[in-house]
Amino acid sequence: MFTSADHAFMASAMQLAQRGLYSTTPNPRVGCVIVQAGKVVGEGWHERAGEPHAEVHALNQAGEAARGATVYVTLEPCSHYGRTPPCAGALIKAGVGRVVVAMRDPNPMVAGQGIAMLELAGIPTTCGVLEKEARELNLGFISRMERGRPWLRLKAAATLDGKTALNNGVSQWITGPDARRDAHRLRARSCAMLTGIGTVLADDPSFTVRDVETTRQPLKVVVDANLSMPLDAKILQGAKLLVATGCDEEERIRQLQDAGAEVLVLPAEHGQIDLARLLQELGRRGMNEITVEAGKVLNGALLSAGVVDELVFYLAPMLFGDKARGMFGVPEIEEMNQRQELEIRDLRMVGRDMRIVATLKRKA
Amino acid sequence: MFTSADHAFMASAMQLAQRGLYSTTPNPRVGCVIVQAGKVVGEGWHERAGEPHAEVHALNQAGEAARGATVYVTLEPCSHYGRTPPCAGALIKAGVGRVVVAMRDPNPMVAGQGIAMLELAGIPTTCGVLEKEARELNLGFISRMERGRPWLRLKAAATLDGKTALNNGVSQWITGPDARRDAHRLRARSCAMLTGIGTVLADDPSFTVRDVETTRQPLKVVVDANLSMPLDAKILQGAKLLVATGCDEEERIRQLQDAGAEVLVLPAEHGQIDLARLLQELGRRGMNEITVEAGKVLNGALLSAGVVDELVFYLAPMLFGDKARGMFGVPEIEEMNQRQELEIRDLRMVGRDMRIVATLKRKA
Repeated sequence: MFTSADHAFMASAMQLAQRGLYSTTPNPRVGCVIVQAGKVVGEGWHERAGEPHAEVHALNQAGEAARGATVYVTLEPCSHYGRTPPCAGALIKAGVGRVVVAMRDPNPMVAGQGIAMLELAGIPTTCGVLEKEARELNLGFISRMERGRPWLRLKAAATLDGKTALNNGVSQWITGPDARRDAHRLRARSCAMLTGIGTVLADDPSFTVRDVETTRQPLKVVVDANLSMPLDAKILQGAKLLVATGCDEEERIRQLQDAGAEVLVLPAEHGQIDLARLLQELGRRGMNEITVEAGKVLNGALLSAGVVDELVFYLAPMLFGDKARGMFGVPEIEEMNQRQELEIRDLRMVGRDMRIVATLKRKA
Repeated sequence: MFTSADHAFMASAMQLAQRGLYSTTPNPRVGCVIVQAGKVVGEGWHERAGEPHAEVHALNQAGEAARGATVYVTLEPCSHYGRTPPCAGALIKAGVGRVVVAMRDPNPMVAGQGIAMLELAGIPTTCGVLEKEARELNLGFISRMERGRPWLRLKAAATLDGKTALNNGVSQWITGPDARRDAHRLRARSCAMLTGIGTVLADDPSFTVRDVETTRQPLKVVVDANLSMPLDAKILQGAKLLVATGCDEEERIRQLQDAGAEVLVLPAEHGQIDLARLLQELGRRGMNEITVEAGKVLNGALLSAGVVDELVFYLAPMLFGDKARGMFGVPEIEEMNQRQELEIRDLRMVGRDMRIVATLKRKA
């Protein structure tokens, strides 16, 4: 049973966790609040991998006041030695009176054992307060733990009639400054940005996070089946670049490596690399959330491969007409039941543009 | 100067006016509230052309209590003899103390004269309370009075990637039942529904108002440049049908007339009729609001002709991909400044679908 106080303190912990939105990767974002006699005596959040977990920060702040207190934490305290000692142990040692967690840790190395450790030590625990919000906060981490691959978010900026560029490729700018800044917040929270060689050749983007303060730049990943990447492409500068290709020409690979890129050769068929394999590999490298900013070719290939989890569409108040470029280059469908169904999660104005967040349903 | 009481009573008058949303055509929707010593003593709204105006209903209800009272009316009282005597005269005769109107009548036969009549009789008047809402309520009537043509609303049901049908024409159903019912409310408030022969041939629609209670069916108008309308098309049944064509083959025209349609021959060029002329003609016939439900050919032609005033898009949570049919068949644009800009007026969920209302800005 949850009290309204449980909800309120967990909401505070969730807000603390949000402070790690751009920095905790590959770890989850976690916040913790310690409450003694209705008063907050300790607060903490996880800031960066290798640094203390949220619970440790909060316990340090609470000191002796932690004894008998209630601890609110957005994710089950860990039970294993990673880069830091287990938090469940620290809570037991501090003599806390009760632990409320938002959700079980999906990490198979924890998965209920943190709660079990606490219960075994005689500390009552409650699980599931604001669980939905807790899952949203770490959807990438959860995806990687549960499915072995990152959460894939596809971002598109389009006109209200669904066009992402004129037929001649011109696309700057469709959305306004508020939507563009909002999109940089998506970049900042992503472990990696994914795009296609078509976008690199057409727009020469840098794909860095701007407009948003962050201490970390996401990895840049370009799908480039034939290694057509120009050696002076802007994307080669700044943050690390991974080029995923189906081409094994050593000379070409060496050139890109010399220019600072890592080259990952994957199985390819009909000039298209195995995107599911690419995502598995990115999951293996600890990538939680990946944001795609690409054109209709890669967007369509990802959609066809069934690996897109979420869409974020910024729709600008303008029309280009049918001759302009569309969003998803996928094979023609001939029956309604072949359509890709979505579920709308959020709908709002961002400046003069609309923002729609949707998740993908399994095909009908 | 408006008091908060002025706002509240005018809002009541506006709600009364709304009751005539589906029935007053070609007249405007008007509501009236009469207030004596802070208490409503009379209410009225205009229901149907030829029947009494809102003010008359309210005065009848108020009786002797109208003397010295404040009258709230959403449109300037008329000053001329139409099918009924002028309302300004009736208010003077009833000895009302003050008249508050939301907006001046855009009808050139009234245009301030109603207010002038009241002022001349020593009755103080105030104009402009909730004017924006009053203009929205009668945007079709205002358009016809000020520009000589109806307000043209283009309704489209599309997927989130801007597709209105599969490539093979299948389009039933993209939107859900709530959005379809909402679209029938747009039909019910329209004086005419406008579509193209392509939609008639593909879907054989009836274009009647269903799902919504109404005493009046809108006129149906089909743009059919070459008179390809089948004589057994469903659209020939039920409410009146006007076929706008560029074809003057007498035999074909006579067949359609015998089937119950009126045929309007308009100038045509390259197999496309003069749409601006069609709208002028519909304005001349007293049409205030026209709703378009068509495919990309007529949608594109109306957009190119610059006669679209408003868009109502129902976007369904699904994707069809680029091979499916788009919204606007217009010539390719090659520079950003040729785009059609919009202004978003409303954004909301209607059941599982999104509804976006936008007005068109002049081209950049």
